[in-house]
Amino acid sequence: MGPPRWFGREATQASFLLGGIGTGNVSLGSRGDLRDWEIFNRPAKGQKLPYSFFAIAVNQGGGVTARVLESRLTSPFSESHGFHPGSVAGLPRFRDSRMWAEYPFVYVELVDGGLPIRVLLEAYTPFIPHEPDDSGLPLAVMTYTVQNVEDEELEVTVAGSLLNAVGFTGVGDFGWVKPEGFGSNVNAYLEERGLKGLKFTGSKQGAESLLNGSLALATLESDVTVKPYWYRSGWWDNLREYWDDLAGDGRLTDLGYGEPSDDGKTDVGSLGVVKTIGPGESVDFTFLVSWYFPNRLNNWSQRLAGCGCKECGEPARNRYAVRFTDAWDVCRYYAEHRERLEGLSGRFRDALYGSTLPIHVLDAVASNITVIRSSTCFWLENGTFLAYEGCFDDAGCCSGNCTHVWNYEQTLAHLFPSLARNMRETEFRVETGGDGKMSFRAYNAFPGTRSWDSVDAASDGQCGSVMRLYREWKLCGDTGWVNGLWPKARLALDYACRTWDPDGDGVTEAKQHNTYDISFYGPNPLSGVMFLGALKAGVHMAEAAGDYEAAEKYRVLFEKGRVNLDKALWDGDYYVQRLGDVDAYKYQHGVGCLSDQLLGQLNASLMGLGYLLPPPHVRKAIRSVYRHNFMRDFTDYDNTQRTYALNDEAGLLLCTWPKGGRPAYPFVYSHEVWTGIEYHVASHLILEGYVDEGLTLVKAVRDRHDGVRRSPWDEVECGHHYARSLSSWGLLLALSGFSCDAVGRRIEFKPKIDADEFSCFWSTGTAWGMYTQTLDRATGRPKWSIDLIHGSLDGYTVNGENLK
Amino acid sequence: MGPPRWFGREATQASFLLGGIGTGNVSLGSRGDLRDWEIFNRPAKGQKLPYSFFAIAVNQGGGVTARVLESRLTSPFSESHGFHPGSVAGLPRFRDSRMWAEYPFVYVELVDGGLPIRVLLEAYTPFIPHEPDDSGLPLAVMTYTVQNVEDEELEVTVAGSLLNAVGFTGVGDFGWVKPEGFGSNVNAYLEERGLKGLKFTGSKQGAESLLNGSLALATLESDVTVKPYWYRSGWWDNLREYWDDLAGDGRLTDLGYGEPSDDGKTDVGSLGVVKTIGPGESVDFTFLVSWYFPNRLNNWSQRLAGCGCKECGEPARNRYAVRFTDAWDVCRYYAEHRERLEGLSGRFRDALYGSTLPIHVLDAVASNITVIRSSTCFWLENGTFLAYEGCFDDAGCCSGNCTHVWNYEQTLAHLFPSLARNMRETEFRVETGGDGKMSFRAYNAFPGTRSWDSVDAASDGQCGSVMRLYREWKLCGDTGWVNGLWPKARLALDYACRTWDPDGDGVTEAKQHNTYDISFYGPNPLSGVMFLGALKAGVHMAEAAGDYEAAEKYRVLFEKGRVNLDKALWDGDYYVQRLGDVDAYKYQHGVGCLSDQLLGQLNASLMGLGYLLPPPHVRKAIRSVYRHNFMRDFTDYDNTQRTYALNDEAGLLLCTWPKGGRPAYPFVYSHEVWTGIEYHVASHLILEGYVDEGLTLVKAVRDRHDGVRRSPWDEVECGHHYARSLSSWGLLLALSGFSCDAVGRRIEFKPKIDADEFSCFWSTGTAWGMYTQTLDRATGRPKWSIDLIHGSLDGYTVNGENLK
Repeated sequence: MGPPRWFGREATQASFLLGGIGTGNVSLGSRGDLRDWEIFNRPAKGQKLPYSFFAIAVNQGGGVTARVLESRLTSPFSESHGFHPGSVAGLPRFRDSRMWAEYPFVYVELVDGGLPIRVLLEAYTPFIPHEPDDSGLPLAVMTYTVQNVEDEELEVTVAGSLLNAVGFTGVGDFGWVKPEGFGSNVNAYLEERGLKGLKFTGSKQGAESLLNGSLALATLESDVTVKPYWYRSGWWDNLREYWDDLAGDGRLTDLGYGEPSDDGKTDVGSLGVVKTIGPGESVDFTFLVSWYFPNRLNNWSQRLAGCGCKECGEPARNRYAVRFTDAWDVCRYYAEHRERLEGLSGRFRDALYGSTLPIHVLDAVASNITVIRSSTCFWLENGTFLAYEGCFDDAGCCSGNCTHVWNYEQTLAHLFPSLARNMRETEFRVETGGDGKMSFRAYNAFPGTRSWDSVDAASDGQCGSVMRLYREWKLCGDTGWVNGLWPKARLALDYACRTWDPDGDGVTEAKQHNTYDISFYGPNPLSGVMFLGALKAGVHMAEAAGDYEAAEKYRVLFEKGRVNLDKALWDGDYYVQRLGDVDAYKYQHGVGCLSDQLLGQLNASLMGLGYLLPPPHVRKAIRSVYRHNFMRDFTDYDNTQRTYALNDEAGLLLCTWPKGGRPAYPFVYSHEVWTGIEYHVASHLILEGYVDEGLTLVKAVRDRHDGVRRSPWDEVECGHHYARSLSSWGLLLALSGFSCDAVGRRIEFKPKIDADEFSCFWSTGTAWGMYTQTLDRATGRPKWSIDLIHGSLDGYTVNGENLK
Repeated sequence: MGPPRWFGREATQASFLLGGIGTGNVSLGSRGDLRDWEIFNRPAKGQKLPYSFFAIAVNQGGGVTARVLESRLTSPFSESHGFHPGSVAGLPRFRDSRMWAEYPFVYVELVDGGLPIRVLLEAYTPFIPHEPDDSGLPLAVMTYTVQNVEDEELEVTVAGSLLNAVGFTGVGDFGWVKPEGFGSNVNAYLEERGLKGLKFTGSKQGAESLLNGSLALATLESDVTVKPYWYRSGWWDNLREYWDDLAGDGRLTDLGYGEPSDDGKTDVGSLGVVKTIGPGESVDFTFLVSWYFPNRLNNWSQRLAGCGCKECGEPARNRYAVRFTDAWDVCRYYAEHRERLEGLSGRFRDALYGSTLPIHVLDAVASNITVIRSSTCFWLENGTFLAYEGCFDDAGCCSGNCTHVWNYEQTLAHLFPSLARNMRETEFRVETGGDGKMSFRAYNAFPGTRSWDSVDAASDGQCGSVMRLYREWKLCGDTGWVNGLWPKARLALDYACRTWDPDGDGVTEAKQHNTYDISFYGPNPLSGVMFLGALKAGVHMAEAAGDYEAAEKYRVLFEKGRVNLDKALWDGDYYVQRLGDVDAYKYQHGVGCLSDQLLGQLNASLMGLGYLLPPPHVRKAIRSVYRHNFMRDFTDYDNTQRTYALNDEAGLLLCTWPKGGRPAYPFVYSHEVWTGIEYHVASHLILEGYVDEGLTLVKAVRDRHDGVRRSPWDEVECGHHYARSLSSWGLLLALSGFSCDAVGRRIEFKPKIDADEFSCFWSTGTAWGMYTQTLDRATGRPKWSIDLIHGSLDGYTVNGENLK
């Protein structure tokens, strides 16, 4: 299969995040540019790191041509002071570029007919499902493959430059780096067992400072040329000297500085690799860019100064800080384990993209993995995995593993099940009180000022957490683990019964705070179906724990509820909210068609809990959601809420009123379009046999994220890299009909598409690989095979047959 | 003539500033959107005022169609939280738009084939050369012309909405207006002598507060519909209610609120005008948007809090605050004087655009008038006109009427000569000490912390000020005025002689601080020619003052200098800097070809001082500047300084070394491209007969400012709306060969282009109008006529003949 989608130079929004779980990121733009340096334990969209770029010098018979390894800049060019030299905007670049990704790898092809070379950049950060530590390296691996297209030998230098950013606090008005944080910065050249490069440190910052850390720029190549420190001078002399040096002969001159930087100053350092390339030959130049900023604000609010005051507190430490001593140590680890890290990352890519699934589905499934490795999530020293809902440009947005947002995610559960289990542990062990009320934002697990909405429990989130506890158990098969959490889960479920279904008819009707940041009143599908799912999950978990009394209670309530809910809410076309006067409370949906009406059902279906409501109604309702809520053009639509789809774009509205009856003030997001919901509705459509409809919906989302309008690797809702988009993994589950019961040691596939010639990636809680199914023409029945890449399937049946 | 240039929806950078001299601005974008609300006495690029927009409701046989009076949004759409409802991004708009300007008027045509109407917006702020007060109204006049393209009558409402921004301090993380400044805000509906509308006030802020002020949204039309206060509710209910109200029947409902806003709150108010439009008929809907924020920080630094502390001081007051009591008063003034204000503004436009000058020259000449009415300039209660060099996005940049930057300006001197004279008064009366050293930044006239460069006097700026004093005198003819300033001017000139030409050979050679923010050493053309010009101007002004001794001294020195300078610096091709070792000092240009080498000569020529250097050398040198420094493509250029031109753009470099000899570290802007210099070089080329070359250069600048890459009304250098770009008026002077000696009561025209059929705008210091010249076929000689539009030319000769 070819690359899924191309992004040209004009795709200014395309920004591929490099970096691991809980490490922060630096991103690669479609021009091959490094951007969005979010390595300092907070989001930093648009943050450039001055003078940090790669360049190439080609020596062809003594004449040297030097180029920045990026394509030319794209408009607008309207900065108030032009481009500052720190952006090296004035240096020559390649005419054009094309970018594509096969997660976790990203590629940028640099094109310039006037040059004697072709260049392909491959960049990635190791990513291995089920191995969060090895997928959590603060590192970007950049390999430039340079092809000589001339018929004579070329001497080629590829050189990376990096600002010593220890103490970096941004750039000032005129584009200069702010001086405050810098002092005694050192760029040391090191060689160690094949690893060569620069280690960037600084000693102005104390060990507890949020600015304290290190960076490294290294290579495993042999012939290197180094300028540890750029020219120490005024204005922008340093860039002039560097470029004249590189473009002079392709070799860098060590200027011989022996002293650390002065107070308020730092230095850029450069590392080049020199290779001779024969006519027609292609050669790789591999660099490692790593960072190590161990301390992060010990508070959900990233608006605090981090000054060590009482409110800021002692800093928290990143998980990666426990494993490594500094950025050079990260490079060392990579160098020692390169074969495995690169090999398994590549096998994941090949298993995912070698699939027969439609390319836009793979795109949706893979691109949102990004969320897990973005600043939306972080990972503490003690192993606690925490997450915002998403990110502002410069801070996390909406704190606390929010249960009603993370209710939609499937990706983490299937790729890093230990982290998903950690989230469940936080929810039940740390955030659920003795009364069973679960704080839907994790303020016990990590400090922060409680947000305005943290009063009521969230009906959808809390019931959803009970369901997800069941899912993680079924994926990992560790009954001891779920039994350990059951007492708290039972409290939580009992709280749900008592609070939202006080009359005990199995249908929630009290005030139900939910993911729309308002409360629904009366019977409604979002809370109601999720409650049924929680009850059904509760039955199974109670039984596993030997808590038969609870199991029976939930069973009885579930049986009542599923009948009562369907009776109360089914309107013949879809499920509605039942309220005498829909305007008695603001922000309801009433007889509107809610896209989320069957979220609980989808989750139940995907985790093997089966139908909670009559299958014909489920099937008709999900089809109605598509029919009523999928808009093919927004040009004439009037939305007075937030806007996520516009003009001639297509997308799924959260709610519509096809039969009239819109409340004067419907719930506050009703007219919006959220990718996280589009994906789960698409998954559900596929699961119920509406494959074309589901794929049309997915295509619409991906078309909106075309790199020009939006980044394919950043689906926003209430913030960048919004967690709800992690529902996209459900598409893979639905299309492959995958189910896993690790307790019963069973996995099954029921492809919904191309069943005669089907292959896909799969993962249980303990193993992953590739599944292939073809039609056995002799028997007329499907023939399957499993390629187990990681973990074990010992004792499992596949599609009811023993694993061969 | 048709509109000069079109800007489509995709021209996201095109932003036309409305607002007067010293009033701040609101800008109109190419989609018809109001943007960049810089009305609060500071730059505010990108500042949106939530919920402030115009909309239309068309009632066609009872069915109402409502649209925002903008075309559809353009990408990117990657805000972290989608578009906030305050941007009304979710409301339907016109499909497309086209924008053009004929300064001071801007037009946006809104296009949508699906609607029964066509709409043309004309917006402007009164602008009358020589009338700074009437060109200094804090006001935008918006006229929507709506044409009914159906064959049935339509009832049409055009409605403006405006946030009561008294106390506005921006929007917060989630897009909501920040509450701190608001409280007791009142939106009062007023009717007064045909003027109807809303006056927006607030009483939380004290009289001295920088946030204190008022706004108004008014109309002179008769049938109005009003919603003084939008729905007071949570979330974004207010927009929902407003849109449902307008789109319901095209009439607005007064919700009947009688109380001012609560503390921390403000309200939006809307004013609609309703008209019935017959089939095919066109009808105007005119609105006035005015603002009144009288207090500004009494300090060049706009980074101060404005808290009233000792450093911030008592606020300064704007000139407009003296003339008006509040924003409603501004509307009242406009209503009373509309005919004159609109009439003369229109006559200026027609005189300028009715010219035969090439369209891109008119574009360059007119677009940069913007600088004078941008936040780069301000105007105090006492009449002092002050200016930064340009603007950061949110603060003035580089303080103090900087003499070496304002050295290039021609526009102010010719359009608002009283303000140019005020700048001379500040320079000589306030900023020149008893020793003749002129502070090249006006820190005496207005408080501020002296900048790093305010140590030495500026050799080019100080000599240039002496020349410009001569220019203002020649334009206004007020010899008493120049005599009053002569004693200080003589001190300044003597300082120049003593400091930069210590050996008295008429050639500057000491350390010469200059506009490149560095110092030149040794004889060089920038300072040297400017010094000659100052000496020659000094001769004339000394004579006028009866100071014959000084006149003789300067004459002798000038005569020596013009020979010595030419001898020292002429290299046969252009003028060079003479230094034994060009690298003995950093940041010189040596044998490089400096674009600015003849700035002093151009200024001398335009102000009637004639040649300072041998005409053949001048002619050859300016041609050499074009030949060596005009780059037709920057793709392969390597510039390590700031970048203002790139990729396949064309532009003029500040310096090149066509014969080698580039210093290791040439002056710090040598590789940059500044429009202010491009225009004066183009003017000089034209003046010396290289018309095609000059026009090619101007075209290159305008092509770079295409609305997609850069705004046509914002030429940046060290900041937005950079003052140096005011050199563009020189193009008009050069092409028309205009000269004015108001002392001798003479004006002359020597068209350099289309002399057989020529017309252009002209202005002296006391009058302006249009000049037309045609070939009298009978005599074979040119025939001219003057259309005097404003002021008097009594007793003047034109082209040596008495005015008919």
